[in-house]
Amino acid sequence: MTIDAAIDALQSLLGDRITRSKSDRDLHGRSESHFPLTPPDAVAYPETTDEVSALVKICAAHGCPVIGWGAGTSLEGHGLAIRGGISVDFLRMNRVLEVSAEDMDARVQPGVTREGLNAELRATGLFFPVDPGANASLGGMAATRASGTTAVRYGTMRDNVLGLEVVLADGRVIRTGTRARKSSAGYDLTALFVGSEGTLGLVTELTLRLRGQPQATSAAVCAFETMEGAVAAVIETIQTGVPMARIEFVDAATAFAVNAYAGAGFPALPHLLVEFHGTEAGVAEQAETFGAIATDHGGRGFDWARQAEDRNRLWKMRHDAYLAILASRPGARAIVTDVCVPISRLAQAVVETQADIAASPIPGPILGHVGDGNFHAILLMDPSNLQEVEAAEALSARMAERALRLGGTVTGEHGVGMGKLGYMEAEHGGGWDVMGAIKAALDPEGIMNPGKIVRGN
Amino acid sequence: MTIDAAIDALQSLLGDRITRSKSDRDLHGRSESHFPLTPPDAVAYPETTDEVSALVKICAAHGCPVIGWGAGTSLEGHGLAIRGGISVDFLRMNRVLEVSAEDMDARVQPGVTREGLNAELRATGLFFPVDPGANASLGGMAATRASGTTAVRYGTMRDNVLGLEVVLADGRVIRTGTRARKSSAGYDLTALFVGSEGTLGLVTELTLRLRGQPQATSAAVCAFETMEGAVAAVIETIQTGVPMARIEFVDAATAFAVNAYAGAGFPALPHLLVEFHGTEAGVAEQAETFGAIATDHGGRGFDWARQAEDRNRLWKMRHDAYLAILASRPGARAIVTDVCVPISRLAQAVVETQADIAASPIPGPILGHVGDGNFHAILLMDPSNLQEVEAAEALSARMAERALRLGGTVTGEHGVGMGKLGYMEAEHGGGWDVMGAIKAALDPEGIMNPGKIVRGN
Repeated sequence: MTIDAAIDALQSLLGDRITRSKSDRDLHGRSESHFPLTPPDAVAYPETTDEVSALVKICAAHGCPVIGWGAGTSLEGHGLAIRGGISVDFLRMNRVLEVSAEDMDARVQPGVTREGLNAELRATGLFFPVDPGANASLGGMAATRASGTTAVRYGTMRDNVLGLEVVLADGRVIRTGTRARKSSAGYDLTALFVGSEGTLGLVTELTLRLRGQPQATSAAVCAFETMEGAVAAVIETIQTGVPMARIEFVDAATAFAVNAYAGAGFPALPHLLVEFHGTEAGVAEQAETFGAIATDHGGRGFDWARQAEDRNRLWKMRHDAYLAILASRPGARAIVTDVCVPISRLAQAVVETQADIAASPIPGPILGHVGDGNFHAILLMDPSNLQEVEAAEALSARMAERALRLGGTVTGEHGVGMGKLGYMEAEHGGGWDVMGAIKAALDPEGIMNPGKIVRGN
Repeated sequence: MTIDAAIDALQSLLGDRITRSKSDRDLHGRSESHFPLTPPDAVAYPETTDEVSALVKICAAHGCPVIGWGAGTSLEGHGLAIRGGISVDFLRMNRVLEVSAEDMDARVQPGVTREGLNAELRATGLFFPVDPGANASLGGMAATRASGTTAVRYGTMRDNVLGLEVVLADGRVIRTGTRARKSSAGYDLTALFVGSEGTLGLVTELTLRLRGQPQATSAAVCAFETMEGAVAAVIETIQTGVPMARIEFVDAATAFAVNAYAGAGFPALPHLLVEFHGTEAGVAEQAETFGAIATDHGGRGFDWARQAEDRNRLWKMRHDAYLAILASRPGARAIVTDVCVPISRLAQAVVETQADIAASPIPGPILGHVGDGNFHAILLMDPSNLQEVEAAEALSARMAERALRLGGTVTGEHGVGMGKLGYMEAEHGGGWDVMGAIKAALDPEGIMNPGKIVRGN
């Protein structure tokens, strides 16, 4: 068999750093989501770019699929080996190679996690701002164009990857971008590989943009009478130019779940959780401006947290909201949806989604990154109850269709993976064929994470 | 002849909106730079996307080159018809189609100019921030991934184009991106077309990100003893998190030229020109912080301009610096160079460039966008003096090579065009082949702006 032949050759290259053990294969066939176990034929643990290049050359020679693997925190099954092949786990390529404080950038290997990088940066006064919640690997975050709570201020991986080293489908190694902050020198290959989910090549190094740790931070939580009021407050705050670092929405159902899970005492209303970064005077002014706007739009019970301890509690609550929601229905599994719409349509999108969920047999608290128009419903289903599973899938499908109808996208930050492939044609039209043409040009044999992003490869 | 046959067919499509008149052809064969006149065979003035699509289909059927044309402000000869063909002038596609104040975005046709858009936005409280100096068309700015004085705060065209409508090389029309602020739905086609200089398709519509007009603006000019001091002040200011809206560098030679041209009284020293956007209290605080940092690094003669009139004078001076430099040597022509390096290497890059220019027979004042590490030398040569022309070209070549040696790029914002093609392999290595593969996949007949960006098409 061709995959077996590839594995034999890879054993000469990697020795015991390639394994066919069931436990390792199963670990790399799972996802955080509801997709069935889809293990690869083997798992490889390369240590250098040269090894990755040699590995890909061997796989190319045998037509063996190659699937990148980071921290396994994908919510859309990006890493599932649906055509078999080799899962390339970047666990051993986890070094921060260089930090330049003057240039405010860092060169890292793909297996470094977000928290790992920030731990190494602590003494420098710098930090890496993209925060998807999970302690994902930076290679994986680049592959899925991840973002999270801070994108409203600092952007997504699209905005924070300055350059890449990539192993192409034939094993060639290229570098994209430079360490200059901007360039007009030809096609933006960095942007092409960011978000390509390992279908065009494997990222073996990233140059990342860093930011200065803010002098001062303040955070607040504020309840609103209505979803529309909360969104209107956000729109006005952004228009006013207040540089919010985070602005998160949780609905009444999420507030309820958090109360039960963490002993919080939120009223059963929609809430905004906000954070400001700046100087002492700056964050105070921003907070005041936001507070006044929020009050104008029915905000109440405005609660400031200027101490790190209070802030940490607030954001821990936000980060734990997913766990709180899961805990609200013991034994349930979740479909975590992920749509993003123009902010002018956000209230409509959320209200319609809430009504749709209310009419279904399952609960689905909603939370999201309201400054970007990106939100998630956590659809809780009993996996053994077919009716519930079908209801969850239908709700998820209608959310995606609704997002497209409102001028948005079927995935704001989780990526395409297994879950959103069916919407690519609807979202991109002829642009999906262009993606297919690019895939065919760069991976003509279709060995790089086959079955993902483009049509029928 | 195939091009003649294409023009015949285009006349049926466009009537008198396609012309072979010498004056029109010459106008579309010129550039703002030193490249020889390279007119197209005809100039077309389409009015709709459908017409552009039909035009490209006709050209594709006849193998006739198609070159986009905006406001003609390219500095690298992007629009020159080096293989003949049709110059597609977007003059008549110059409408602002939609402005959404809530979403802070606008949908525009490619022939709208930057100043035209901002004039239409004036009453909305919003503005489009990318400012390359010239009143370029927005389609052209997207094609070259333009930026300018405000990129340090608001980013380049890469960051401010949310989506595009593009006519592909076979006449198909696609839309890239959505009106959502972010997406993880597949390859970032928007980013691929931005900066592609018309070699992959023609942009027929842009969705642009807008910003709120700042409540308050302040600006300042400050002389420094040394280039190194000026750069160190900029680095520290950025690290401190001061959100500068502009931070421009002019060298002593530029200050001297501006004095002569505009009756200014700058000392013959390097200067920084800065601008802050924010609240009244915010810009005052930012100015104070910057002032203290500048003083620490040898800044002196700090001069604030909080009144719009004073600010306008300051920035007019900066925008007129190119004219002032040209006027400093009557009859001279300029090569405007454009390199960008990591900011930690900026002082070195400028100092080495100044020394190189000083040892040459020609003058070359330097100015640039210091917050991005991007700078320009305006190399003034007598075009009839072969020795001077050769000296200018050699200086320009050494600047590009120096930028690469220091980890930078051969073009920060002007693009590849005719002037930087020779450096693409040195800058991108194997990445240049990837660009070629993408070009071959999307424009297999090589009709879209042939001879630009990629190898030998």
